[in-house]
Formats: sequence, C-alpha cells, structure tokens
Amino acid sequence: MKVAVLGAGGKMGSSVVQAVLQEPDLELVALVDPKLSGIEYSHALGIAGTGLVVSGDLAEVLRSGADVAVDFTDAASAYQNLLFCAENGISAVVGTTGLSQEQLGELNEKFQASGAGCIVAANFAIGAILMMKFAEMAAPFFHSVEVIEMHHDTKVDAPSGTALTTAKRISRAKVASGGAFEPDPTQKFVLQGVRGASVDGVGIHSLRIRGAVAHQEVVMGTTGQSLTIRHDSYDRSSFMPGVLIAIRGVSTVRGLAVGVDDLIEEMFNSMSTDRAR
Amino acid sequence: MKVAVLGAGGKMGSSVVQAVLQEPDLELVALVDPKLSGIEYSHALGIAGTGLVVSGDLAEVLRSGADVAVDFTDAASAYQNLLFCAENGISAVVGTTGLSQEQLGELNEKFQASGAGCIVAANFAIGAILMMKFAEMAAPFFHSVEVIEMHHDTKVDAPSGTALTTAKRISRAKVASGGAFEPDPTQKFVLQGVRGASVDGVGIHSLRIRGAVAHQEVVMGTTGQSLTIRHDSYDRSSFMPGVLIAIRGVSTVRGLAVGVDDLIEEMFNSMSTDRAR
Amino acid sequence: MKVAVLGAGGKMGSSVVQAVLQEPDLELVALVDPKLSGIEYSHALGIAGTGLVVSGDLAEVLRSGADVAVDFTDAASAYQNLLFCAENGISAVVGTTGLSQEQLGELNEKFQASGAGCIVAANFAIGAILMMKFAEMAAPFFHSVEVIEMHHDTKVDAPSGTALTTAKRISRAKVASGGAFEPDPTQKFVLQGVRGASVDGVGIHSLRIRGAVAHQEVVMGTTGQSLTIRHDSYDRSSFMPGVLIAIRGVSTVRGLAVGVDDLIEEMFNSMSTDRAR
Amino acid sequence: MKVAVLGAGGKMGSSVVQAVLQEPDLELVALVDPKLSGIEYSHALGIAGTGLVVSGDLAEVLRSGADVAVDFTDAASAYQNLLFCAENGISAVVGTTGLSQEQLGELNEKFQASGAGCIVAANFAIGAILMMKFAEMAAPFFHSVEVIEMHHDTKVDAPSGTALTTAKRISRAKVASGGAFEPDPTQKFVLQGVRGASVDGVGIHSLRIRGAVAHQEVVMGTTGQSLTIRHDSYDRSSFMPGVLIAIRGVSTVRGLAVGVDDLIEEMFNSMSTDRAR
Repeated sequence: MKVAVLGAGGKMGSSVVQAVLQEPDLELVALVDPKLSGIEYSHALGIAGTGLVVSGDLAEVLRSGADVAVDFTDAASAYQNLLFCAENGISAVVGTTGLSQEQLGELNEKFQASGAGCIVAANFAIGAILMMKFAEMAAPFFHSVEVIEMHHDTKVDAPSGTALTTAKRISRAKVASGGAFEPDPTQKFVLQGVRGASVDGVGIHSLRIRGAVAHQEVVMGTTGQSLTIRHDSYDRSSFMPGVLIAIRGVSTVRGLAVGVDDLIEEMFNSMSTDRAR
Repeated sequence: MKVAVLGAGGKMGSSVVQAVLQEPDLELVALVDPKLSGIEYSHALGIAGTGLVVSGDLAEVLRSGADVAVDFTDAASAYQNLLFCAENGISAVVGTTGLSQEQLGELNEKFQASGAGCIVAANFAIGAILMMKFAEMAAPFFHSVEVIEMHHDTKVDAPSGTALTTAKRISRAKVASGGAFEPDPTQKFVLQGVRGASVDGVGIHSLRIRGAVAHQEVVMGTTGQSLTIRHDSYDRSSFMPGVLIAIRGVSTVRGLAVGVDDLIEEMFNSMSTDRAR
Repeated sequence: MKVAVLGAGGKMGSSVVQAVLQEPDLELVALVDPKLSGIEYSHALGIAGTGLVVSGDLAEVLRSGADVAVDFTDAASAYQNLLFCAENGISAVVGTTGLSQEQLGELNEKFQASGAGCIVAANFAIGAILMMKFAEMAAPFFHSVEVIEMHHDTKVDAPSGTALTTAKRISRAKVASGGAFEPDPTQKFVLQGVRGASVDGVGIHSLRIRGAVAHQEVVMGTTGQSLTIRHDSYDRSSFMPGVLIAIRGVSTVRGLAVGVDDLIEEMFNSMSTDRAR
Repeated sequence: MKVAVLGAGGKMGSSVVQAVLQEPDLELVALVDPKLSGIEYSHALGIAGTGLVVSGDLAEVLRSGADVAVDFTDAASAYQNLLFCAENGISAVVGTTGLSQEQLGELNEKFQASGAGCIVAANFAIGAILMMKFAEMAAPFFHSVEVIEMHHDTKVDAPSGTALTTAKRISRAKVASGGAFEPDPTQKFVLQGVRGASVDGVGIHSLRIRGAVAHQEVVMGTTGQSLTIRHDSYDRSSFMPGVLIAIRGVSTVRGLAVGVDDLIEEMFNSMSTDRAR
C-alpha cells in the first residue's frame, strides 16, 4: 500500500513518516509540505534514510501513485487537500481538526462520488478508543462511575474532550440498558465543589499536574468491587497505531467516516466470528 | 421469581440471603442448612427480618415453590442438591467448587432432560469477568502485556486462577487475530527471576501483601501509550452482582452452563442491537 | 504489658481484642462493656479463647492491674472512663471521637497530675498517617498537587477529614519552604466544577463509589515526572497497627497527646540516629 | 550564580541549558561542546535566544567566571573536565556515569584541596529519590513489601538500578528497626517464577511494556491496609529539578558527594526546624 504524508514537516506529520517507515506492508511514496519544499527529508528532520525530497506541490500525491494520503496540516489546507484527494480517487486519513460540519458534509459527497474513502478522527489513540468502548460496555453492570482525567498544567480547557465523550457514552449506555446513574447526594459539604462535575450521574474530575502528559481513568463500582480502566498517553506517537489501522482500513470505507471506531468494531466482530467457528 | 438458598448459614450463603432480600423482583422462599435446622434465620445470623425458619430438609425447596435454588455448600452436598433440583425441574445457580467433570456431565444430562437450567461458576465477580473479556478484546491492538495479581499474604497458591485464565485468554485472542506476544528477551539479569512467569509471551506476576484482599491489573502497551484494566475485590459480597445475574438469567439456560460469561455476552449483544435500532 | 479494653463488645473494641490477643508482649486482662456484662467473651463474639468474662464495671480495670486501657466507646462514656483512668494512674489509648476541647483540656491536667499518659486519636491508620507525613515532606519539591479521596457511596460528607487535613498540611509545608502552590487557572470550562475544590492551591476531589472502602491518593508533579502516594484501607482492622503503637508508646507520654504522629516521629528519629552511628 | 554546561549539545546537556535559562537566579555563562564549536547555540539546537556561542575549549569555563559547571558528557571527558574544575576551584555537578571508584577517590581529594565541591549522581529524578526515602521510612511499619518497576520493552537489563537500590534500602531500614521481611512462602506454584525475585524478603518484579517510559511502584501492606508510593518519569527532563537543587547546593559541599540525598536531607531538617520554632 502506497502512502503520501501531507504536512510531513509538522510534529504529527513527521511522526507519521517514521511510523510508516517501520511497517513492511506500507510504502512511503510522497511527502508534501510547502515549508520544506525541495529539501531532502532526512536532512531536514534529522531522520535516517527516507530518500525522499519534500514537495510543495499537492500534485505529487497523484504523480507518486499513492493509495492513501495522510493529512495532519491545518483546517484550511486540509479542506483543499481533501477536495484534491476526492477528485482524484485517492483515499485519505485525516487527523487535522477544525473542519466545519458543512465542509465534512461536502467532502462526504465528493468521496462517495469518487469511490474512495476518507476517515477523519480527532483521536487516533487506540487505548483511549478502547477505554471508551469498554467503559460503555461495563456501564450496565455498575452502580457508580467516576471519570478522572489528568493532563499537564498548561492545558487551557477542562474537562478534556475525551473525558466528556467518555462520560456521555457511559451515561447513554446505562440508559439504553434500562438503568441510570443516580448517586446518593452528599449530605454535608465541608468544602464546596469537591464532588466535581457530573454528566447524568457520571462524575468528572480534571486534574492538572506539571510533568503529566495525557491520562484518564474510569472507576466503576458495584457491591464489594471496583473496575478501573486507565489510559496513559506518554507522547504524540500514541496516535500512530490508530493512524496505521486507518491507513490499512480506509479502503473499506465509502465516503467519509468519523473516527476509527467502526473499523475497530469490525475487528471485534471478526474476532467473535473466528471464535464461534 | 422465588429463590431458595442452600447452605444458607455459610459465609457465602448468608451473603446471598442478604443480597436477595434487597431485590424487589426476587422473593426469598426457602432457606436450607442442616446445621441451623429449626432456627429462625434472623436470630441465628443477626440479620433483620427474613421471617423464615431454616430447614434441614431439601424437600423444603420443592414445598416452597422455588423457581431457582442457589447452592453454596460443599462438593458432596451440592451434587445431591443438584440431582434433587434436576429431578424436580428446579433451576439452580451453583458457586460450590469441587464437582468433578463426570458429575458435571451427569448433571448436564439430567438438567437437559428436566427442562430446567443450571449455572455453575467458580467466579461470580462481574468486574473480574469483564476485566478478562476486555483484556481479550484489546489483545490484538497491543504489543506487550503483563498481568499483575495481588492477594493477601496467606494465599497458598500462585498465580491466582483468575490471573492464569486471563493470561491464557489474552494469548489465545492475540493468536486468533494473527499475531503473537513476543517480548524482547531481557539481555542482562542483575537479579534472576525478576521478569516473573510467562504464558505464551504474556507476563504474570504474583504479589502477596498483608492487608490486601483480591486485586488484579492487566497492563497492555503499544507505541506511546498503555491501557490498564484493574479489578479490586474488597470482600466476598463482590460475588453478589454476578449471582443475581445468574438467578435472573438461568431460566434461559437448558442443561448445565459453566460460568456467567454467556449471559453477559447476551447482554452485550442486546445492547448493540438496541444501539443499532 | 497488661491491657484492658473498654467497649469490648463494639465493632472497634472487638477488633482491638483480637489484635491484642495476637501480640506476645501484650496481655489482655480486662474486658468492660455494660451491654455484655457477665458473658464469657468468646461465646458472645464468636471469637476463640480469651477465657475472660466481660464486666459491666469500670473498677475491673483497676482490679485486673491493667497498665493501659483502650477506649472505643462513645463520647459520654469515654469521658467518664478517662477520668477514672487518670485518677487511678492508668494510661489510656482513645479512639472514641466527640470529646470537647474543654474535656480534653481537663483530661490533660488530670493525666499530667497522675503521672500517666493518654493518647487520643481520630485516625490510627498508620498508612494514612505516613501518607500525610510524606506528602508534607515532598511538597517543597513539586509544582502541582492534587488530593483524590475515594470512599463508599453512602458516606455522608465530603471531602473526608483525612483529605482536608492532608491538603492543609501540604499547603503549610510549601509555604514554610518559601513557596506556594499557584496552579495556572483553567482558561476555558467546557463543564463547570470539574477542577474540584482547592485549599491554597492544593486540589481536592471526592469520589463516591459503591463497593469502595476508604482510599486516598496524593499526586504531585514537577518537570517530567509525578510522585503518587496512595493509601488503601480495606477494613476497620486498618486501625490496629496504630493502636498497638499507641499501647506500647503511651508510657512515654505525660498528660494528653493528640494523635500518634509524635510517637511515629520519634521512631523516625531513632532510625536516623541508628543510621548515623 | 553563574553556570557553565559541558556537553551542551547532548540530549541531557541541552535539557540542562533550557532548564537553567528558565531560572531567574541562575545565569548561563558558558557552553562547551567540541562537536558544536563556534556555532551560535540557539541555531544549532533550535532553542530560542541564549546569545551564546558554543566553545570547544574547556578554558571557556574559567574565562566566563562560572561558579558551577554541569557535566553530562562521557566518562573519559568528564574525568578531564572535573580535574580542570578542581584545579581551578570551580564546583561541579555531574550526571555522567561510568567514572571508576579510583577516579572518584582522586577527584574527591582534588576537590577537597581546592575548597570547591562536586556532586556526582546517577539519578537526579527528585521523585525517585523521595520514593526511596519514604519507602525506607515506612519499612518498619509494614509487614509485606513488593517493588514493581515498569520500563519500555527495549530496556536491556532487569531489574532497574533504582528498583534494586530501593529494595536494598527498604530491607536495611527494616533490619535497623529490629525487624525483617519474612513473607509466608507460597505453598503451591501453579506456574513457576510468578513470585518474581526477592532481596531479603522484599519482592521485585520487572515489567517491560512498549510505550512506557520509566515507572516504579512500592506497595507496602499491613493489617487492613496498603501504602503505595509510585514514581512516574515521563521524559528526561525529569532529571532537571534535581540538577537545579545540586547547582544551588553544591557550594555547601566540600570534596565529592555522591547523590543529592544529603542536600535533600538538609532541606527536610530545615523544614523540621522551621516547624519547631
């Protein structure tokens, strides 16, 4: 499978380059980044041996015969890049955030028409995706849930997007099973605010710790026991396993898919089928 | 649903009595325990208000019109109790361990013939069951796995049965997905034995700590991240949620089923179906 | 050393009885509990072999020649019991809560006059005491701190007393070292309240989880790293190691001491001295 | 305080440069690295604004009037660099490993003679140093201990040096308090080797996980409770807080000191004194 990387000089882009280089079944065929145009890639980034020269021209993706383009650029560039991919029937994996609903809708139509696929995901960290999935599955069996996310102390917002999504999914799964999380209210607050926030009975707590990276823990309790599901992300390379799943799976997508959850769900199903045989 | 408890005076049995009393849809109709025959239950165990007198006679189960009998006795008693249930078409939930494969086979036939169901499980801790299930599902997506179990320091054996089963299931799931856990060997041992044991590349470590109860952690790692699934069991009441699932679900079982995993799997499937609608 | 237990029939009292019975250097000589007066102790509590009959009369403490009386009763009884001990020169270890400052002041004078000692502590859990001590010592070296306490879901108040004390001590230690905890404020709250409460820059978060017992974690972070100190209390026997330290150490106390921290501090100092030699 | 950095172009050296630049009371006056000689530092490393040109000549340290030289080079270079510092009365902080006992002895004499100080440390991670200190202090109060270290799966040796040192210090502290760790032996091994290694009754377990960095947990248990002390190191910048403590404290050292433990101990003592006043 031939892969092009758009935004190859950025932090995420160069991580993708390195990840693809380590996979025997993937061939890196094009690097695009206007800021590094004409530079031999390994010199620019201090990476050994791609042998590729960075191009400033999107047409390089087409010339190289790439099957899949991976885009980690910015919203404006990504929109243009994806229109180009759709027009030329090249599948795309997109980690760039900030595309509008309108743009996503348009791209869906264009990719549908082209017969190629496109996966847009805000979070490629496979561990985080599984954490949410498992927490959702476990919800019907537990009486209490608390989501605790911990990030570095310079994070501007709280809670993290993952924590909020996790809490919502847990709550919805509980309701779908005919239940609800209805914790006993604290009767006496010695200190206001210590119980954090709540999404339909699912507690959320945001910790900000100098030195930490990105961590989340879901604690679920019922009679005599607790189940804890924790994801620790140590650096941005944590996105790579999910990006590789998307690269290998995007050929099965028609139009635009949000998230890699469906690909993972299919992998689960094929596992169950194997076991059933 | 009418429930009888066999071995009602034992530690597990009396926990079952208390758990059943708290469920509005379950009615406690018979308590059997030869050691407490004729005693008003609440007096004997210091529990408030069952209003029931303990019987030493198994026939009480039949007289009371019980739909389900829960057995936490010993292997010899359980075998007799279950033959009685099968003959009389009463479903059974069994936490007693030590029944032989031959006995289980015979009971399976008898329950098949009677049209009633029987669930025999060594572990009713729902959190432990989910931990194993999730670790198995996650296996294909990770490169390294270590299972760490921690129990009180008087536990006679190591590793725990749950840890060994977990490791085997993780390994099998990895192989089923076309992979294998093949950790890099440690090149230099400053101290022999520190890497613990291994089941097909899945590490197992047993900790023994005064004060601890029963705890297990599965740590799985891949590029830039780790996923940790942890179960903490704080006391024997941790079995109760699983026993209640079995009581409510045993009517769907024909013959003898080992473990509550299939009931839980069905609950997962009905959740997926609900979501798909 | 001869030990009397006041409130021997209560939950804490009977735990003390069992703990004392297991220590070769401690001799159990008197059990007082008006509610169990005249009953052979082991029959009443289902405990093997104390050979003692419970007395309803406080004078039994004196008659038995006890060196130390351990009191886990209620505030009214404890006050009377301690006056009796002080008058008779018997040292006391007290876990009963609710004595007023005035009562404590009076008892201090009476114990001073008698030449005996009295230790009153709200928390004998040695692990919790060490957690607070270590967190305090570590405070000057870290930039961010969060205290997360987790208790069963029926706890009526929040935060726990231990969590509040921990946060205050951490904050004071930081100030004493010439610093202060001043976390960057969260700029954007997607959900209000998720950052919990704060005591002078030390975050506090209270989790309430069915099945949990009493747990607390202090997470401290600085450049590139975090230090986590966690205490898990699994049942009320967690108080016993601290009670035993108090029983053995109360002879060195004159008057009334609050907490076992000073005894532990002395043990630390003797350790340092040993090492220095 | 004026600081020179030797090996300024290396991974650790450039981390030191960045750390020193952020401290208002420290002035970066010299950068030495033969491999980057003559290059303006910020251009070479992509760091903003030191305004300094890297020198290939050790004499630059003297010319710049540095009070302290920080050395992260290699054993051969460090030996020469430290002889130069000792001869010129410049204090030194050394993170370079591999100096022989003979060399350290000689350097101790030379620094003693010069009136300057030198701190050589294998581990500047303040969190790891505190973890060891606290585990040692806690040892007398607990009955069981297990040390679990987790590192990335390419680590060549096991256990980590920190884990081994931790176990030895815990064991020595227990013995110094008149006790010993003597865990009950496991009676039945379902799988050989699962209990890991042991240093005088302190268990050691090494986990190797793809994606992990450097983590260690000390779990200590006694009746009804456990105390866990955990250090997570997320990247090499975790050394910087300890390096800064050493830079600021080296002026109080005469001759050569191994480790920053003594400086930290002094900080603890001054805290106690402050509290006592």
